[in-house]
Amino acid sequence: MKNIKKILVGQPLKSTDDDSHLLTKLQALAMLSSDALSSIAYGTEQIVLVLLTLSTAAIWYSIPIAILVLILLASLTLSYRQIIKAYPQGGGAYVVSSENLGDNAGLIAGGSLLVDYMLTVAVSVSAGADAITATIPFLHSYNLEISMVLVLLLMVMNLRGLRESAGFLLVPVYTFITATVILIGVGLFRIATGSLPFNATASIGTFVPGVSMVLLLKAFSSGSASLTGVEAISNAVPFFKKPKAKNAAATLAIMALILGVFFSGITFLNYWLGIIPKAGSTVLSQVAHNVFSFPGGGALYYIFQIATAMILAVAANTGFSAFPMLAFNLAKNKYMPHMYMEKGDRLGYSNGIISLALGAIVLLFVFDGNTERLIPLYSIGVFVPFALSQTGMVVKWHKEYGKNFLKHSISNIIGAFISYAIVLILIALRFKDVWPFFLILPALIYMFYRIKKHYVQVAEQLRLTEDVHATEYTGNTVIVLVGNVTRVAVGAISYAESIGDEVVAMHVSTKETKHKNAKVEAEFKEYFPDIRFSIVESSYRDVVRPVVRFVDLVSKAAQKKGKTVTVIVPQFVPNKRWQNILHNQMSIRIRYYLGFKDNVIVSTYSYNLKK
Amino acid sequence: MKNIKKILVGQPLKSTDDDSHLLTKLQALAMLSSDALSSIAYGTEQIVLVLLTLSTAAIWYSIPIAILVLILLASLTLSYRQIIKAYPQGGGAYVVSSENLGDNAGLIAGGSLLVDYMLTVAVSVSAGADAITATIPFLHSYNLEISMVLVLLLMVMNLRGLRESAGFLLVPVYTFITATVILIGVGLFRIATGSLPFNATASIGTFVPGVSMVLLLKAFSSGSASLTGVEAISNAVPFFKKPKAKNAAATLAIMALILGVFFSGITFLNYWLGIIPKAGSTVLSQVAHNVFSFPGGGALYYIFQIATAMILAVAANTGFSAFPMLAFNLAKNKYMPHMYMEKGDRLGYSNGIISLALGAIVLLFVFDGNTERLIPLYSIGVFVPFALSQTGMVVKWHKEYGKNFLKHSISNIIGAFISYAIVLILIALRFKDVWPFFLILPALIYMFYRIKKHYVQVAEQLRLTEDVHATEYTGNTVIVLVGNVTRVAVGAISYAESIGDEVVAMHVSTKETKHKNAKVEAEFKEYFPDIRFSIVESSYRDVVRPVVRFVDLVSKAAQKKGKTVTVIVPQFVPNKRWQNILHNQMSIRIRYYLGFKDNVIVSTYSYNLKK
Repeated sequence: MKNIKKILVGQPLKSTDDDSHLLTKLQALAMLSSDALSSIAYGTEQIVLVLLTLSTAAIWYSIPIAILVLILLASLTLSYRQIIKAYPQGGGAYVVSSENLGDNAGLIAGGSLLVDYMLTVAVSVSAGADAITATIPFLHSYNLEISMVLVLLLMVMNLRGLRESAGFLLVPVYTFITATVILIGVGLFRIATGSLPFNATASIGTFVPGVSMVLLLKAFSSGSASLTGVEAISNAVPFFKKPKAKNAAATLAIMALILGVFFSGITFLNYWLGIIPKAGSTVLSQVAHNVFSFPGGGALYYIFQIATAMILAVAANTGFSAFPMLAFNLAKNKYMPHMYMEKGDRLGYSNGIISLALGAIVLLFVFDGNTERLIPLYSIGVFVPFALSQTGMVVKWHKEYGKNFLKHSISNIIGAFISYAIVLILIALRFKDVWPFFLILPALIYMFYRIKKHYVQVAEQLRLTEDVHATEYTGNTVIVLVGNVTRVAVGAISYAESIGDEVVAMHVSTKETKHKNAKVEAEFKEYFPDIRFSIVESSYRDVVRPVVRFVDLVSKAAQKKGKTVTVIVPQFVPNKRWQNILHNQMSIRIRYYLGFKDNVIVSTYSYNLKK
Repeated sequence: MKNIKKILVGQPLKSTDDDSHLLTKLQALAMLSSDALSSIAYGTEQIVLVLLTLSTAAIWYSIPIAILVLILLASLTLSYRQIIKAYPQGGGAYVVSSENLGDNAGLIAGGSLLVDYMLTVAVSVSAGADAITATIPFLHSYNLEISMVLVLLLMVMNLRGLRESAGFLLVPVYTFITATVILIGVGLFRIATGSLPFNATASIGTFVPGVSMVLLLKAFSSGSASLTGVEAISNAVPFFKKPKAKNAAATLAIMALILGVFFSGITFLNYWLGIIPKAGSTVLSQVAHNVFSFPGGGALYYIFQIATAMILAVAANTGFSAFPMLAFNLAKNKYMPHMYMEKGDRLGYSNGIISLALGAIVLLFVFDGNTERLIPLYSIGVFVPFALSQTGMVVKWHKEYGKNFLKHSISNIIGAFISYAIVLILIALRFKDVWPFFLILPALIYMFYRIKKHYVQVAEQLRLTEDVHATEYTGNTVIVLVGNVTRVAVGAISYAESIGDEVVAMHVSTKETKHKNAKVEAEFKEYFPDIRFSIVESSYRDVVRPVVRFVDLVSKAAQKKGKTVTVIVPQFVPNKRWQNILHNQMSIRIRYYLGFKDNVIVSTYSYNLKK
């Protein structure tokens, strides 16, 4: 077990190793941008698909819509750069919203993102599996299995630690960036040299009968789904090398630039080439096919396809960086279990990584790999936190700069405005897809508050008050569970005699073992003539109940005399892990049930088996 | 949780309630015969299918083959009646073989049956699901799910206890018996009155070109698969009301009689009507269709179909009675984990019942519900123990009666001979289906011996020898794990002071909590100025390793002085079960790893949270 863990996860690292494991900008871009960049693969298509419900001529509207998406991208980028600088300890929507808008807003943002990262992983990974099986068709019936393997692969990679996963991601991310730069470059060059004829379904500005605001808004909301990965870097500032905030802000700017250029380039090429989505082939694949339609271009086309498949497959990784940090921040504020604060052997937040992987696998399983219908849900889940965090920044600037806040918060205001607009559009036009959001979120927030309430109550119960004093006990009563008279029994009784002034051996007898009682007692008396040997008759086959009842009796008598009560339960520690199933089933149950008794201390006398 | 268990499983029963829960013959027949009787549904078909590979004319051979099956049934019945009388404590092939032929033979028989019961459950339940969905076609795509639900239903029923499951089974078993009696009765009456014309594909004795011994043997081995349920009653003698052996033997005789009459009746009707298996309809269903082909007979046909579906669905129950008893017998001899000897709340061997259900569900899942191809495997798995137990009986009679053993063992000899023949036929003619048997069985037997060896070694290690004496300790060192200074810490230290002459508070500090060390120490000193407060620095984020290292150091020093070492780990016992996830993750790990230290006693100081 331990060795398997070492092979998969690697040698444990010391906390002080932390710094060497931080990310350079190059690595961080690989680690954190895969989600945003991969949306290039479907962003334009989403817009065109909506416009096509009217007519092919409407495709030209994708150009103005793309410009609006770019404005949103710019304002989100500026705003998140501010957030990074203002919250260098890892901000993100949760921290910004809760600090500036209050707990509820923070929890809405945090809860949305928590679910969103699971959705991202499920959606991205199944898109990746689709892309892989489109390239290698004979794997087609194993889509779901490939998705799950990808999730597990990403999980293991992330458990191994940051730098390793970044290293692993360098290849797909930079291959995709290079391939897309070549695609757009070749495309524009061929347009400039006239070897790619203008073939748009209708020129920009053509009047299209029946065009409506609703349609354009729908197309815009679909297109803006491409921006869902922007949040990730602001969550992950602590993972950067120093100066953390500066490096993170720079990385965000680079990512936004790449995203903007790619998105507008592909949207433009698509318009120019007049491409209409068709079954079995994506818009992006058709763009590439057209652009590379020159002798020798086939190889480039093939490389581009593989690069797309790879970026989709690893897009889920963004969630693996962001989710554990978010869970950590929520746990720190007692809204999630403390276990999300523990770092694993390799300094990642293992519990967060594992929870995310499990959640995504459940989603994949439930939706049988058909996760496309989750996209609108996932959009609302990311634009709500966007809107809240921008609003939070406006409030923050208002607090800090008073009346002069406007000039600092202009990008936040624009970003917030567009984000709220998208949320409203999604609710108004896509309610049948996004309604689960309004069930899941309140349930999550209820859970957060329940957990917080519990931790607060526990702290109150544990707090020392005036009336709490150390107790002076008059003695110790020790009960030892004795089966047969063996080395274990002798050892346990010896220990009991050293800590207790009153020792009782408790032997549990069932109908089947009753005939041996006398023999066991005689053997016991030979070794410990002065110790009380109590036989607990079990009229149920169950041993636990009579044991608890006996301990209760002894405990009441002991408490009257001001004594402590200790129950010693022997446990075998086998040499090999599988042998555990052969032992201790009973001890585990007895220990569990005695745990419910206050004032009874349960001790485990471990006997390590050598063979 | 407890309430759910009560609703599903029922109130716990006392051991003394045992007798009232034993089975009458009527109940036992319902409980234990469903497997054997359900084979009526496919026994004849199996023979006919093999014969048809030659020609339709060969169908008449099913009559002499059926006679041979009846002889085998008679000899098995007589032999198992002897086994029941000789081993009234619940014999079965495992006990008979190991007592008379040695451990290896016993384990071969036991191992075969263990796997076989899992196969039975999987095969029967999926046949039942097929029959159900044949009647209710819109459920067809949920075959696998229905199978699993049936397994879980049978599991819960058996966890509820014997009598309840027998009660539940009375309806399907006796409905099927009644319906089949009507079928055969009406069929014979209509033949006698001439209203069912003779329509055989060829009369008995007709020469069929190409007929071969191999074909007939194959047909015979397929037909004898119907007898696989005969073993069950001999395993379950202890479940009968007194006089146990007599009642069990009588039940076996009744079952064999019903089985013989049904099998020969249906085989004869099939021959007479000249029925040829066709897709989408079983032979039995066609027989019923023909026999009930008179005005008003449609209702009878429909009832018969439902009865068949029901008996198939509950046939798996036989395995649920027999498997836990077999596992108990193996566990008693230390070949399986002790936990199979524990009775549950309702006096069934819960662990056996649950293991069987899980095994069957795994088989269903792996074979995706298409379990027909498991049938030959399952036949060899039952005829090997048949052959061994009969041989065992011959050996036993020889020991008891010396030279006169022959007259007592004639039925055993015939039974053994035919069983060995079937095993040889299966190996010779069906090796491609039965080969896994020769992998699984050695693996199981290896496992049995490993488990036995382990238990024997443990017993040796625990045995008291001359040199073992009670130890006189000079004192007690107690280490208390202290996080913050709370009520729990004060309580735990008070307890520690009462049992130890040397108490150490161990505070674990991580990079994140380091700044609070001084404050915690000051608070602690206020309450316990005389107790050593040790801060364990954790350079790993992991708390467990430094704790173990610190305990090791203290433990070495204490042992030199002849003192015991106790580590007190506080544990929170939350009010509600779900809250467990919010606590104790760390304590569980610390306790687990300290369990590997001999001479370190780990004590749990439980603090029950009230809110």
